[in-house]
Amino acid sequence: MLTPDQLDRIEIVLVSPRNPLNIGAAARAMANFGFSQLSAVAPYEAHWREAQSAVQAENLLQNARCPQSLHEAVANCTLVIGTGTLAHRRAEQPVLQLPELGARVHSELARGGRVALVFGSEKRGLTREDLSHCHLLAFIPTEAAQPSMNLGQAVAVCLYELAVRGETANAPLADTQPAPQANSAELDRLAGVIGEVMLAAGYSPSEMRAANRHDLRLLLRRLEINGADARRVMGLFRRVLHKIRA
Amino acid sequence: MLTPDQLDRIEIVLVSPRNPLNIGAAARAMANFGFSQLSAVAPYEAHWREAQSAVQAENLLQNARCPQSLHEAVANCTLVIGTGTLAHRRAEQPVLQLPELGARVHSELARGGRVALVFGSEKRGLTREDLSHCHLLAFIPTEAAQPSMNLGQAVAVCLYELAVRGETANAPLADTQPAPQANSAELDRLAGVIGEVMLAAGYSPSEMRAANRHDLRLLLRRLEINGADARRVMGLFRRVLHKIRA
Repeated sequence: MLTPDQLDRIEIVLVSPRNPLNIGAAARAMANFGFSQLSAVAPYEAHWREAQSAVQAENLLQNARCPQSLHEAVANCTLVIGTGTLAHRRAEQPVLQLPELGARVHSELARGGRVALVFGSEKRGLTREDLSHCHLLAFIPTEAAQPSMNLGQAVAVCLYELAVRGETANAPLADTQPAPQANSAELDRLAGVIGEVMLAAGYSPSEMRAANRHDLRLLLRRLEINGADARRVMGLFRRVLHKIRA
Repeated sequence: MLTPDQLDRIEIVLVSPRNPLNIGAAARAMANFGFSQLSAVAPYEAHWREAQSAVQAENLLQNARCPQSLHEAVANCTLVIGTGTLAHRRAEQPVLQLPELGARVHSELARGGRVALVFGSEKRGLTREDLSHCHLLAFIPTEAAQPSMNLGQAVAVCLYELAVRGETANAPLADTQPAPQANSAELDRLAGVIGEVMLAAGYSPSEMRAANRHDLRLLLRRLEINGADARRVMGLFRRVLHKIRA
């Protein structure tokens, strides 16, 4: 069972939602299962306003944030989970089946982290760019013949799973708590410095722009680096950069 | 995992559904999770016709039955399960929490039974009369402050639970196996190159000898880096070293 403090450290992030009914349904499912932190990334203005009048979830929608980018939405999160059905895409990061997600989320919360659960727009789901902000992909096990779920229903199923699963089964020992993970903003700053070092070390700017920055972002997320280590590594790269430019 | 034969022996029964969107959403969730047997008890005629044009679940709705009573709908079922939130009612039959339902349904199917999962109308849920046809009540664990779920979302959550529970124990997806971790020798080679970069970048040799090498080794192990990523990172540091020494 998630504690109120833990529930408040789970962000539900909808990327460019279109349908006001779906936004309202997502908020209602959050209220049903005790979640309160909602962000809608760059929602369609009129639809967002319409959704805010949704029955039975008004407070939640009034308090929701509307950041301009997913980057901004997940900046202070230490574990960012993309959701989807894997139908058309080869995943670039680790994939969990939804029933396995509870345990992972609970251990992240237990060590003081902050978790984002990210849902793509109704039309196209999460883009490759969106996914590059994610540490993990959670896969809802649907039928091959009809893999795509309605947004409001997908949110309900995921939140149900988190709410009921992963009781304090494998509670870590207090004195072996790992340090909190670096959050997304710290990872992006680190990626920025490493990118500068790579340019300074002779990687061509054109190489760096797209493919390498994307791969670097994913690589840093695979490492599950903690905040203190991220600062150590950043210190090293800053020193290297200083040296190369000297 | 439910077999196709077992899936065909689970009836989803909606009692007097009103909202065509909810009927469509229920059918879509059924298609998502592989269920095919839908009954709507005495639906509102116009709404039912409108729902039958629901995107992505047409076949299912065309083949649905519309019995005049719940009694008739569940006539050939050996286990009838009412769903709800228990908010306002003292249950008159055994109650299971939804997460416990999978095992019960599986054992009923395993012995050749036929199961009905019954959902009440949007307005008032299942009546006491409806519940008198039920062997069991399955309780979706929602918040006291907002217990009532949207019909389409409640169906999705219940079917997800039945579909995923009792799987053959979390078999990982073959093509998303995490890459093998870097072994100790690879980590030590990587630490060696990084150590050289640090010296070249101006860390003093005495600093590097003990504490830093030790910390670097631990840091690399905390990262749980896979072999391919270790090689990528090593390539980067080699290039940096070349540049600094040039």
